[in-house]
Amino acid sequence: MAKAKKKPVLSAMPLGGVGEIGMNMMAYECDQEMIIVDTGIMFPDEKAPGTDVVLPDTRYLQEHVNKLVGVFITHAHEDHIGAIGYVWEELNGKPVYVTPFSKLVLDNKLKQLGIKPAKGQVVVVNEGERHKAGAFDVEYIHITHSIPEAYALAIRTPHGTIMHTGDYKFDDNPALGPKTNEKRLKEIGDEGVLVMLGDSTNAFKKTPAGSEAEVVERVMELIDGCDGRIVLSSFASNTYRVLKICEEAAKKGRKIAVLGRTVQNMVAYAKELGFFPAGLANSMIEANEVKGLPDNKVLIFASGTQGEAQASLTRLANGDNVRGIALKKDDTVILSSKMIPGNERGILDVFNKLLMRGCKVINEAMDDIHVSGHGGQPEIKRMYDLVRPQIVVPVHGEYAHLQEQERFAKECGIKQTFLITNGRKVVFGPGDPYVVESGFRTGRNYVDGYNILEDDQFILRDRLKLAYNGVVVVSIGIDRETSQVVGGPQIQSMGLIDESIQGDMLTAAEQKARQMIDTTFPDSKVDDVLRLQEVVSATVRKLISSERGKKPPVLVTVLPV
Amino acid sequence: MAKAKKKPVLSAMPLGGVGEIGMNMMAYECDQEMIIVDTGIMFPDEKAPGTDVVLPDTRYLQEHVNKLVGVFITHAHEDHIGAIGYVWEELNGKPVYVTPFSKLVLDNKLKQLGIKPAKGQVVVVNEGERHKAGAFDVEYIHITHSIPEAYALAIRTPHGTIMHTGDYKFDDNPALGPKTNEKRLKEIGDEGVLVMLGDSTNAFKKTPAGSEAEVVERVMELIDGCDGRIVLSSFASNTYRVLKICEEAAKKGRKIAVLGRTVQNMVAYAKELGFFPAGLANSMIEANEVKGLPDNKVLIFASGTQGEAQASLTRLANGDNVRGIALKKDDTVILSSKMIPGNERGILDVFNKLLMRGCKVINEAMDDIHVSGHGGQPEIKRMYDLVRPQIVVPVHGEYAHLQEQERFAKECGIKQTFLITNGRKVVFGPGDPYVVESGFRTGRNYVDGYNILEDDQFILRDRLKLAYNGVVVVSIGIDRETSQVVGGPQIQSMGLIDESIQGDMLTAAEQKARQMIDTTFPDSKVDDVLRLQEVVSATVRKLISSERGKKPPVLVTVLPV
Repeated sequence: MAKAKKKPVLSAMPLGGVGEIGMNMMAYECDQEMIIVDTGIMFPDEKAPGTDVVLPDTRYLQEHVNKLVGVFITHAHEDHIGAIGYVWEELNGKPVYVTPFSKLVLDNKLKQLGIKPAKGQVVVVNEGERHKAGAFDVEYIHITHSIPEAYALAIRTPHGTIMHTGDYKFDDNPALGPKTNEKRLKEIGDEGVLVMLGDSTNAFKKTPAGSEAEVVERVMELIDGCDGRIVLSSFASNTYRVLKICEEAAKKGRKIAVLGRTVQNMVAYAKELGFFPAGLANSMIEANEVKGLPDNKVLIFASGTQGEAQASLTRLANGDNVRGIALKKDDTVILSSKMIPGNERGILDVFNKLLMRGCKVINEAMDDIHVSGHGGQPEIKRMYDLVRPQIVVPVHGEYAHLQEQERFAKECGIKQTFLITNGRKVVFGPGDPYVVESGFRTGRNYVDGYNILEDDQFILRDRLKLAYNGVVVVSIGIDRETSQVVGGPQIQSMGLIDESIQGDMLTAAEQKARQMIDTTFPDSKVDDVLRLQEVVSATVRKLISSERGKKPPVLVTVLPV
Repeated sequence: MAKAKKKPVLSAMPLGGVGEIGMNMMAYECDQEMIIVDTGIMFPDEKAPGTDVVLPDTRYLQEHVNKLVGVFITHAHEDHIGAIGYVWEELNGKPVYVTPFSKLVLDNKLKQLGIKPAKGQVVVVNEGERHKAGAFDVEYIHITHSIPEAYALAIRTPHGTIMHTGDYKFDDNPALGPKTNEKRLKEIGDEGVLVMLGDSTNAFKKTPAGSEAEVVERVMELIDGCDGRIVLSSFASNTYRVLKICEEAAKKGRKIAVLGRTVQNMVAYAKELGFFPAGLANSMIEANEVKGLPDNKVLIFASGTQGEAQASLTRLANGDNVRGIALKKDDTVILSSKMIPGNERGILDVFNKLLMRGCKVINEAMDDIHVSGHGGQPEIKRMYDLVRPQIVVPVHGEYAHLQEQERFAKECGIKQTFLITNGRKVVFGPGDPYVVESGFRTGRNYVDGYNILEDDQFILRDRLKLAYNGVVVVSIGIDRETSQVVGGPQIQSMGLIDESIQGDMLTAAEQKARQMIDTTFPDSKVDDVLRLQEVVSATVRKLISSERGKKPPVLVTVLPV
């Protein structure tokens, strides 16, 4: 209780991404002001069928929006920027800070949702710039990751400096783009850092993530050894890797065709921002030009590293013709990517289908053609050594990753650590830091068509019941004046039985329901519609359960006529 | 065409398990006789929600059941024996050959389905025995795997000997039970083997699978280093490992409580067959006795290595009390198992939940506490060297695994190989072997409650539609005599919207549908019920699609009153 009275003057509270991989969103508060860092999404699992993306529950933001002074985006991966359009209305017109590359991604997202930002609301930040938002002074420091323009944020406040690392590794040999700005990180470390909130994704990994240039080199060795067509797949957002491989392949005389809208966007952004390799410009071709070229003069980039049903690579593996391109026996498919947990089954299906078409397929389990964008323990230590924070709070990870970074931080001599998950606020001072005892509301909201399903998931639970059992619908007509049953019960079903074979069961259910109505309501006069629905529903369910071993939802419509 | 005329006298055709992991079932034919080896299941993926297990489509067996002379089960894993009860009726009373351990598993399966085998139909086979079924002379040769009593089958026929390896590795140091009978394999090799159909599961693995005794030793080191409670999870069917660890832990003074029906069955089978370790008998306790003991005197075996929702370990991780046992902070959980592809997400969820309860958790990624039951390349070569087959046909694997074993077989100097998948028949002779040009019908059937959904999956497709979109039901009352609409349209929905918030949409849909009926049918006289259903369904769908961005199935009931 003593702690509750203390005024929380500098704090951090994750709304998403801490205790899970995905939908990163952090609220930093200083006195009566708040900034948000990142607004990410994650992808729904099988418990939320039919939904499009998952958003953090932003109730806390909404309730404290009067404090909001700005939103800062570290980089343009979906788990950091993907929710921006969905929360846009909640930002109360406050500025959103993005780098030039992230701005292009942001613009596209807002456009898709029909949102026009107010003039000046989107603020473009360049490396090394510092922007003030209320009491917060935020500096963008370039770090290496697996997307152009990834940044750590040094957030200076009257009560100390926060280092929000964002997603990072130390790539001493990136494919394109600069290295991590270690000099600046060290300078900020020299100034003194109160707390570092750091990426935990690869906290279990004992070795460094590895360099992008090594990936490009190895992929090029594979391409050089191949005199047929190359089909390359990688994450489109790893634009540096994709462009560098394409550039090197072009030098070897291959023309490059690109399948997949996201990667086409990325190519356009690279051109707009001036990092599209000059040597590549004359080697890009349209998909329909592929067929006119010898096989060893072609590289096709196909999106879809995760076995996504609609992705180009999946469609090619299924034997589809994608914009004039179909796979051929002896094509070499290079999957320069990893399996994201949960996607394994779909990815292996695509892998097997590619083999069955006679393609040679190389994935990261078979050769060194992928590196992670998240640093392992050596890089986490390197960040600690540069920044020298008093406190470490592991973020960006499942509980296991957070716990492992905490353990490792202690091993590295970090004085104080806090292991928190979404909804737990850490107060850093002034005075001794502590975690606020009662958690705040967080959770997952689901974008479902044009709607957002809030965390109370009745609708999703109903969908799972339908998915597992199908549905039975019963209609009963009741005379408006006499309340007598004058039609039905008439039954149909979906997803339960083949009615052409087992229609008898529904007829039997109709008879059973009719009998129950007669016994329950003398003279078939229905004085209680709810009771009628209950009785009929229970009778039908019981019969189907005993005949069929399934308990489908039974929807009873009582129709006044 | 020349080939089609040749009489196929000795052949193999997989009905399941070749081109996929799971539901192994092989048909061998010799002249006019056929044996089946194994009748396995697999587990349904997210494309078959609500179904229980997947069975091979046995149409081929049914159509040729007059040829059937016997069914041989190699071992009691679900993917080899799981379908036996479901296909029992199709076996026409022909003998089913099982070892003593498999017989106990079989008995239990048949009992659950209420099947009583005819006297003499189940034939118990012991190591080294040879049983004749028509022209086939089948010898059981013990191999090591990850379940008691796993066997390779040497199938002698008038046209040559087939070595059906079953699932195997060469474990020179098993936890319990004998080693692979290499002497006998070599003798049969000396006799001459025409073809080997061999396990491909670990064809990509360059190293041997490793020994069970090493796993037991390492797990015991972890247990010795721990002065709290131990919770152990492993595959129940790996009964040797489970019993050996329990025996060793009992020697160190721990009492053993077992949660999970399957493993309790396995313990009972071990007692019945006499391989239950003598030293363990006095150390087994009931779950409710755990709470009376000091933490360092307890080992709890909890089933559920794959994150299954109803398994003991999952329930413990969720905080449930399972038969008097709940997890405590500082319990050590040892997961001596691997992740089966497709289950990763669920397993990681359990893993994180265990950590959040304060448990120490050790899995196979963190320590050497699991080995596979399937041999890697060195063991595949060892099998080739013993058996020296003229032909190798890779089985038991996804296409990638089959292809890799084929490549490896060629590398090892095997003269001839055939890469087939389910439904492709290889004819071995007499004369040159070949694959029959037209494939035979195979596929997946789904056990769904008391029904079996055949491969034409209308019902499953309907369930997925319901899962993704929910459902809308419309009732319309029509006067039996005048054909006029006298009630409705009345609409309800499930899994689509929160009707307490968005009920207006259904009211609007009712009005729209009413208008459409009026325009389509002058004087509301419905002369075409199908047309009425189409018009109403299309109208409602269109409105919901534009308002909600979803296209749910719309079920229209026309009710005569």
